[in-house]
Amino acid sequence: MMQQRNPEDAALRERARRVIPAGMYGHGNVAMLPEGYPQFFERGHGCRIVDVDGNEYIDFMCGYGPNLLGLGHPKVEEAVDRQRRLGNCFNGPTARMVELAELYVETVRHADWALFAKNGTDVTTACVSIARAETGRRKVLVSSHAYHGAAPWCTPSSAGVVDGDRAHLIYYEYNDLASVEEGVAAAGDDLAAILTSPFKHDAFMDEELADPAFARGLRRICDDKGAALILDDVRAGFRLTVGGSWEPLGVDPDLTAMSKAIANGYPLAVVLGREGLRDATSRIYLTGSFWYSAVPMAAAIATLGVLREEDAIATMEAAGSRFRQGLEAQSVSHGLPIRQTGPVQLPMLLFENDPGFEKVRALAREAVLRGVYLHSFHNMFMCAAHGEQDIDEALERTDEAFACVRREFGG
Amino acid sequence: MMQQRNPEDAALRERARRVIPAGMYGHGNVAMLPEGYPQFFERGHGCRIVDVDGNEYIDFMCGYGPNLLGLGHPKVEEAVDRQRRLGNCFNGPTARMVELAELYVETVRHADWALFAKNGTDVTTACVSIARAETGRRKVLVSSHAYHGAAPWCTPSSAGVVDGDRAHLIYYEYNDLASVEEGVAAAGDDLAAILTSPFKHDAFMDEELADPAFARGLRRICDDKGAALILDDVRAGFRLTVGGSWEPLGVDPDLTAMSKAIANGYPLAVVLGREGLRDATSRIYLTGSFWYSAVPMAAAIATLGVLREEDAIATMEAAGSRFRQGLEAQSVSHGLPIRQTGPVQLPMLLFENDPGFEKVRALAREAVLRGVYLHSFHNMFMCAAHGEQDIDEALERTDEAFACVRREFGG
Repeated sequence: MMQQRNPEDAALRERARRVIPAGMYGHGNVAMLPEGYPQFFERGHGCRIVDVDGNEYIDFMCGYGPNLLGLGHPKVEEAVDRQRRLGNCFNGPTARMVELAELYVETVRHADWALFAKNGTDVTTACVSIARAETGRRKVLVSSHAYHGAAPWCTPSSAGVVDGDRAHLIYYEYNDLASVEEGVAAAGDDLAAILTSPFKHDAFMDEELADPAFARGLRRICDDKGAALILDDVRAGFRLTVGGSWEPLGVDPDLTAMSKAIANGYPLAVVLGREGLRDATSRIYLTGSFWYSAVPMAAAIATLGVLREEDAIATMEAAGSRFRQGLEAQSVSHGLPIRQTGPVQLPMLLFENDPGFEKVRALAREAVLRGVYLHSFHNMFMCAAHGEQDIDEALERTDEAFACVRREFGG
Repeated sequence: MMQQRNPEDAALRERARRVIPAGMYGHGNVAMLPEGYPQFFERGHGCRIVDVDGNEYIDFMCGYGPNLLGLGHPKVEEAVDRQRRLGNCFNGPTARMVELAELYVETVRHADWALFAKNGTDVTTACVSIARAETGRRKVLVSSHAYHGAAPWCTPSSAGVVDGDRAHLIYYEYNDLASVEEGVAAAGDDLAAILTSPFKHDAFMDEELADPAFARGLRRICDDKGAALILDDVRAGFRLTVGGSWEPLGVDPDLTAMSKAIANGYPLAVVLGREGLRDATSRIYLTGSFWYSAVPMAAAIATLGVLREEDAIATMEAAGSRFRQGLEAQSVSHGLPIRQTGPVQLPMLLFENDPGFEKVRALAREAVLRGVYLHSFHNMFMCAAHGEQDIDEALERTDEAFACVRREFGG
């Protein structure tokens, strides 16, 4: 059945199984998604993606984040063209690096400096190293279930992880200051940092916005203990605000890690830090073969320009609200209660009375068959190319998908 | 003086110091290079690069490796254009990923499968995790002074590194099997892997080709102990051969890490592994936001095509030999004995009687002033765009640079 709808995808999966372990890996692997999800894509534009069998989807994952303004955004691609004509990868950076660092320092409230890398994992790892170098201490408090990257110290699997990798991590519960205080007590005089995210966005769970008292509490504890407050803004950065995701709370982290959306799909990551951490940062040897490449930096400059000039965040908020309201109305009309949590730009959708996630899987399966790419256990992502018509078209199809869920599970 | 020659570079450094820790970081930082090296580049083509003040250099660093075929190689850029029109960053890979994995499995002798990432550090780290996951053991033998990346377990600095990060590393001396045997004995029944490089290419030291008996010895020890032999081919991969850098020795590693040159400057890294390690690999959660992006994979397919069709490695060998012979003749004529070591495509140049590296620094300083970009303590890189005329032009200028060294230090 799937083979008939997606014969090219099936053929590529078969070839992939021969030359890639398990045929695919990481967050791009659809093995945990319902049947019918395409593994391989052919092309895309704006918020629309097309798989290798020619099926088009209105995309609510946006590359798991990187597609912020729409695929192939003309201003970003123009900046990329311009930089490519000059060149990308030299023995050092171009002026784009300085221009981009200046832009971030000017834009993100707590940032006094910037350091660029490639992966989200590069910059979360760098933040931990910087905190340890500055404090001379080892313990890092991490929120249970939070994803901070795929290095041995943080990857969700335990395969290949050895005792040393996580020896100095202590876990707390998000939005629970008492659990943080317990962790701080356990760390004693060895607390280097508290690592957190701008809101709780763990897989298979409702999202939770940060309680402002929780955020302020982390700041106070870090100040008291001389530890660094690290904000892992890799997933949410520049979708909520351009000033840093905790700017609206008035809480400044010491270090922020960002990546994913900052260059609209071009590979780039950044550590933003406060003045006092410059020296520690410069004592660590942080580098990578492509970390000074100019093209992704040119793309990032253009991306931030579009974000500021075209109010792209408001566009995403409007599209996300429209989508959320439409889904809520469908949930009510079909008698299938759902929970939609978190910021509308990074929405999480789960069903009530769905402990095994069968209902949300059925919705996602029926939606993808109808050309709407949702996720069944991970937060989704809006982009600035989601227009009202795209949302309305997606909602027409999710209404049919809800009807299928109702037929399967009752309403 | 430098300011007069490089006013734009000086101005950018000043701006960079305000918004980037120490103004620059990692291997692209020129702080440890002699005076006169430009920090910021404007453009480049083939083997020529131009700094922000308009000074042109014949480049012997090639972006510290990535520039393999020449900057802006038409066949690579054409493949990039074609893929960009389709798109780069979706919710999963494109067919390019399968095509590239198939190409590598067909080309690199020991490879049964491939897994793609972004940084060299991503793939050296993944290799260690895979070996540990497969064996259920922890200890990894690593060559003293070897560079395997910039994560806490391997970065050359100790700032930010904590006790757990390197708890299970044991060091040996390259080309010294007795030291390896000592390490193996120390690991006892806990040996997961031996990590090595295709030849010794450590900073500030002569390069050493692998003694074939050493390479075979590592293979035999790993077979005896059920440990994985990991080849860190990040720096040299595809500059020596397309079959894997130890193919000429007839020694097959279990895992190879490659990056740098494989996509001619586009960001990509790959683990290549043998059949028996597929399952362990698929149990580890390895991922990154940009790891499935199609453009660098399209560039890698084109790069390997050019390597095979145009015999680019022979071109680099010829250029490297011509450069080495010319430098040797200049060394003799100026009475300044030098040591040129390693493969001619990744040459290392040091002076005799130069314990403080003053002579090699003087040569590099005088060369860069004359438009030849050498390195004073790191191996250099040839690319396939180095023509005879480029080499001869470079040699005219290095002859003047040698004369300066002679005036400064005597012959």
